[in-house]
Amino acid sequence: MNVESMIVPTVRLRRGALRLVDQTRLPAEYTIIERRDVDGVVEAIRSLRVRGAPAIGVAAAYGLLVAVEARWGDESRYFFDSEVPDAPASSGRAIERFPSDVSAGAVVRCLEAAREALAASRPTAVNLHWALDRMARAWSDPGDDARALLRRLLAEADAIHVEDLDMCRAIGRHGAALIEDGASVLTHCNTGGLATSGFGTALGVVYTAVAEGKRVHVFADETRPLLQGARLTAWECRRAGIPVDVLVDGAAASLIASGRVSCAIVGADRIAANGDTANKVGTLGVATLCHRYGVPFYVAAPSSTIDASLPDGRGIPIEQRGAEEVLHFAGVRTAPDGAGAWNPAFDVTPAELVTAIVTERGVHRPPYRFDRISA
Amino acid sequence: MNVESMIVPTVRLRRGALRLVDQTRLPAEYTIIERRDVDGVVEAIRSLRVRGAPAIGVAAAYGLLVAVEARWGDESRYFFDSEVPDAPASSGRAIERFPSDVSAGAVVRCLEAAREALAASRPTAVNLHWALDRMARAWSDPGDDARALLRRLLAEADAIHVEDLDMCRAIGRHGAALIEDGASVLTHCNTGGLATSGFGTALGVVYTAVAEGKRVHVFADETRPLLQGARLTAWECRRAGIPVDVLVDGAAASLIASGRVSCAIVGADRIAANGDTANKVGTLGVATLCHRYGVPFYVAAPSSTIDASLPDGRGIPIEQRGAEEVLHFAGVRTAPDGAGAWNPAFDVTPAELVTAIVTERGVHRPPYRFDRISA
Repeated sequence: MNVESMIVPTVRLRRGALRLVDQTRLPAEYTIIERRDVDGVVEAIRSLRVRGAPAIGVAAAYGLLVAVEARWGDESRYFFDSEVPDAPASSGRAIERFPSDVSAGAVVRCLEAAREALAASRPTAVNLHWALDRMARAWSDPGDDARALLRRLLAEADAIHVEDLDMCRAIGRHGAALIEDGASVLTHCNTGGLATSGFGTALGVVYTAVAEGKRVHVFADETRPLLQGARLTAWECRRAGIPVDVLVDGAAASLIASGRVSCAIVGADRIAANGDTANKVGTLGVATLCHRYGVPFYVAAPSSTIDASLPDGRGIPIEQRGAEEVLHFAGVRTAPDGAGAWNPAFDVTPAELVTAIVTERGVHRPPYRFDRISA
Repeated sequence: MNVESMIVPTVRLRRGALRLVDQTRLPAEYTIIERRDVDGVVEAIRSLRVRGAPAIGVAAAYGLLVAVEARWGDESRYFFDSEVPDAPASSGRAIERFPSDVSAGAVVRCLEAAREALAASRPTAVNLHWALDRMARAWSDPGDDARALLRRLLAEADAIHVEDLDMCRAIGRHGAALIEDGASVLTHCNTGGLATSGFGTALGVVYTAVAEGKRVHVFADETRPLLQGARLTAWECRRAGIPVDVLVDGAAASLIASGRVSCAIVGADRIAANGDTANKVGTLGVATLCHRYGVPFYVAAPSSTIDASLPDGRGIPIEQRGAEEVLHFAGVRTAPDGAGAWNPAFDVTPAELVTAIVTERGVHRPPYRFDRISA
């Protein structure tokens, strides 16, 4: 297996539109959707058509450019057409079409409004804010030339995209050393190509290990309420020819206790300076069981996931999502009228339960001191 | 609230037929189904139309009588018509219609075949075997009079039914002392009236506490794959006017860690002599998290759930169920083609994680020595 062949066109900027694999329709349908305004990008992020902290970061960076398209362009006259990741440097020639009478200041006002809308789309993933902050630095000194500003913004968004792909390669390389030939790896949620602009973080480690010739069996927690494990991780594993068994989240406990699991490896949405890790709800349970039964529990995430401003996990905001995700399934109501729901999207795993954290910089072991790392 | 009003007609023997609340259709539909032969009873148990260890025991005891109906009776000429639990002693008058030319030996051969089929319907719940063994003792010395034998069998099945109801009352009374006013109680699976012939074991404890005037909030794990928590526990709580929030099973970890839960209370399908407890898959995770975060974890079950022949939980057979339960939901396929599934119906919680076990005899504290108790 070649890991590069595992890249999914999760997020692309083409001919002025954000193109996304609609992850809510997988595995039944593989559909590319287009978004041509910020409301559409926000809706796609909020409704999890695009999800996974790294992929959300790339989508938000490009989402700023989509705001400029919506304000001054149209389908026949677009300004941004990126070849990334297929060709690493975009020409940016379409930017020459940008109206000469629009000032850089007007562009910045448009970007600031878009930034606010995008930043509010999901609260937990820090990559979203990291990508938006990075883009904002590129317009902090806008100059007089709007087209030059747009070229810098496209280059910055493309850089975030390309670096995300490089990050997947590096995490995969570092993490694969933790996976032995014949390993059975437990995963939670989806951390593959669909969660990034490359081939993934935690699942990218598995891909890399398989590419190195190791035999790996994946146990995928289905990951209620939105079944990213059953729908997306299992789809990616089958696409890669990796054997995969899906289990309900409650079954992970006895699977871990039974000794059938070599290690668990998950992604992260935000990591505090001490290593406390916010990830998809249910991760804390997996980590606690792994700790009890002596199974290594690994987190794999780009260093952009680290929020060095937070000393520990208590400061991480946890998104509460709508009750209907829990009380319904596939349009069928599962609970009676009058029942409420408790539906946090994430939980926080204390660092003491995390055997190692794999970033593109290497394998970090406890005690984690990410306040010393510039993220 | 009167706890007696919480009794659901989960399992009844009326006019020669086993009548069951079809639990696969709740909460959308409340439907009573009839089963008039052993294959139908086995199908109802295997497909979880009737489920919950105590309810399965009662259904199996009556299922033996249904076998006699299928062999010698018909809808207009039935032999068994029980008023239990509405009238505690059945008259057994219909038995006089039983053909005088059928020998007690022929009845026993019919019962033995039915016992074998019923015993194979589900492997983990020990109450099933306990009820069948108890019925078998009633035919071990069959005598010459088939009608007298049938009267003994009806009396024994009714006794199992009535004792199950008494057991609910006693467990509720003992267990309610563990629930404080204002408590938030986490449940897993369904352990209420639908799981017994009375008003439940673990959920019966909640009912009894509420009947005593305590305010109780229930957090119900939805309990994938078959959603007994979302569908059945939430339905029972709303029926009883008890506030209930449903959560996905993965969210129980952070709910427990957050300090929002006063205690967890679950049922059991089999308890070994040392207190190791088999219960619905996911229970081990709840118990492990409770242990880590100092939240009391209680098991409530009749003493017929105790299998004193097993020194510990390693000997408990764990039912593996079909992959389609995990890979589909409500007729919708959730995982891609080619994905496998790991689908154990139960897991085993080690006794060291169990704060107390409530039976009809009282509240048992560790170290559990159920080998000294005659079950």
